[in-house]
Amino acid sequence: MILGCLGPEGTFSHEMARALTDDEIFLFPTITDVFRAVTEAKCDGIVPVENSDAGAVGPVMDCLFRAPVFITGEAYLPVVHHFAAAVPADQITAIYAHPQAHDQCLRFTEGLGVPVIHTESNSASAAMATSHPGTGAITTETAACMAGLPLQQRSVQNTRDNTTRFLRISAHRPETRPMTGKCSLIIDPGADRPGLLYELLGVFDRCGLNLTRIESRPSKRAMGNYIFFIDVEIGPGLPEALEAVGELALVKDLGWYGRLEGKK
Amino acid sequence: MILGCLGPEGTFSHEMARALTDDEIFLFPTITDVFRAVTEAKCDGIVPVENSDAGAVGPVMDCLFRAPVFITGEAYLPVVHHFAAAVPADQITAIYAHPQAHDQCLRFTEGLGVPVIHTESNSASAAMATSHPGTGAITTETAACMAGLPLQQRSVQNTRDNTTRFLRISAHRPETRPMTGKCSLIIDPGADRPGLLYELLGVFDRCGLNLTRIESRPSKRAMGNYIFFIDVEIGPGLPEALEAVGELALVKDLGWYGRLEGKK
Repeated sequence: MILGCLGPEGTFSHEMARALTDDEIFLFPTITDVFRAVTEAKCDGIVPVENSDAGAVGPVMDCLFRAPVFITGEAYLPVVHHFAAAVPADQITAIYAHPQAHDQCLRFTEGLGVPVIHTESNSASAAMATSHPGTGAITTETAACMAGLPLQQRSVQNTRDNTTRFLRISAHRPETRPMTGKCSLIIDPGADRPGLLYELLGVFDRCGLNLTRIESRPSKRAMGNYIFFIDVEIGPGLPEALEAVGELALVKDLGWYGRLEGKK
Repeated sequence: MILGCLGPEGTFSHEMARALTDDEIFLFPTITDVFRAVTEAKCDGIVPVENSDAGAVGPVMDCLFRAPVFITGEAYLPVVHHFAAAVPADQITAIYAHPQAHDQCLRFTEGLGVPVIHTESNSASAAMATSHPGTGAITTETAACMAGLPLQQRSVQNTRDNTTRFLRISAHRPETRPMTGKCSLIIDPGADRPGLLYELLGVFDRCGLNLTRIESRPSKRAMGNYIFFIDVEIGPGLPEALEAVGELALVKDLGWYGRLEGKK
């Protein structure tokens, strides 16, 4: 199946997809468009779900909740941001950055003391800096190169081990379940019930399962009402745990999956 | 104490601050600048911490972790976004929006089918649309009015009951603790220990305390390592719970606080 991801060329999503396939890659203008194409089975999707510095990618989590898709694999990409500009850092009057890149390079951008202008993608940041003399961009090496913008300072992100976790999403659930890896669940408790999260975690504990991530998101029903995204390591107790959790709350099983392999 | 918040004039933070005081309000260009001024005891801060549709405000949560500040109150603001432009919606070629406003109006902006350009604030969105003929903005009534931009469509956010929760932050902990309200904690488990979150929630359960929110954030140490933001309702068992939780993990007590009252 062809892969689709957030474009334009030069985004981290594109870099991740290129590391996974030599085939054609479909590039979409928004995350929602990626999910729509996957739902229509036009391609599988590669979407960023969390970053080790900036945290969860909210729009992706909301699409995972709404769209009838399944997670079929995960992959990790080291993320390095560069400062690119036609002039040195002390001569720029503004800097372009995607909101996530801005978060991940906050210490660098605050040190510059110039306004930060948000863009749609790392590629757009580089293109804007090229077309607006006296400005700079937080961007990737590929995007800077494509925009003809020199790198003035490499590796300007807050943390050295900055990593983004990507998911492969598909319209269909694989026919076989892996014996190792992770299972991702969305748990919707409905109305707020004190102690319910403790009860839910108790189920996984009793079944000998380790949670690798728990993330709350607004249910969108009312302020203070949440749904929970839970990643759990696959183990023998998982089917029993899913049954028990299903008796406490609504559960969406997003899929059982392992690490994706890069192209050979 | 004077209040400070994210500017420029016309932001939701400014609107929230104006609902709380008739005194002068300091406006800062970034969330980090608000926290810095509060740390230096130049003012108290009013900062958005979560929205009922778009979820947690990551940069605010990261500043709460790093900065030596205390939460001294909370307040809620209904959030209504409008579509403002000099021309009707079907004639625009691009739309300006702050990333959080974009998230909260995703259904509307996707229906337009034009590129969305991110900005630093709702006020900047309105100003950009005014200075670029043929474009529009997702913005507030105040910001549209200040930019001289007519409202073409009111209330374009995804959910009707869109609400943002704000915190008041101060350099000093109040001398007395309220008997009702909430307590906000940051719990840092250090290395990943399976089952620790379940143990932590068990403490609150045994002490008869209700959690109103749990939010994980990256620890920034490594991918897959998290800290937890927990809001708990104040009750007689809270001091005992804090002691027990402190034996399991590092705990930062951000403060015990109630609802802020609007100006009379």
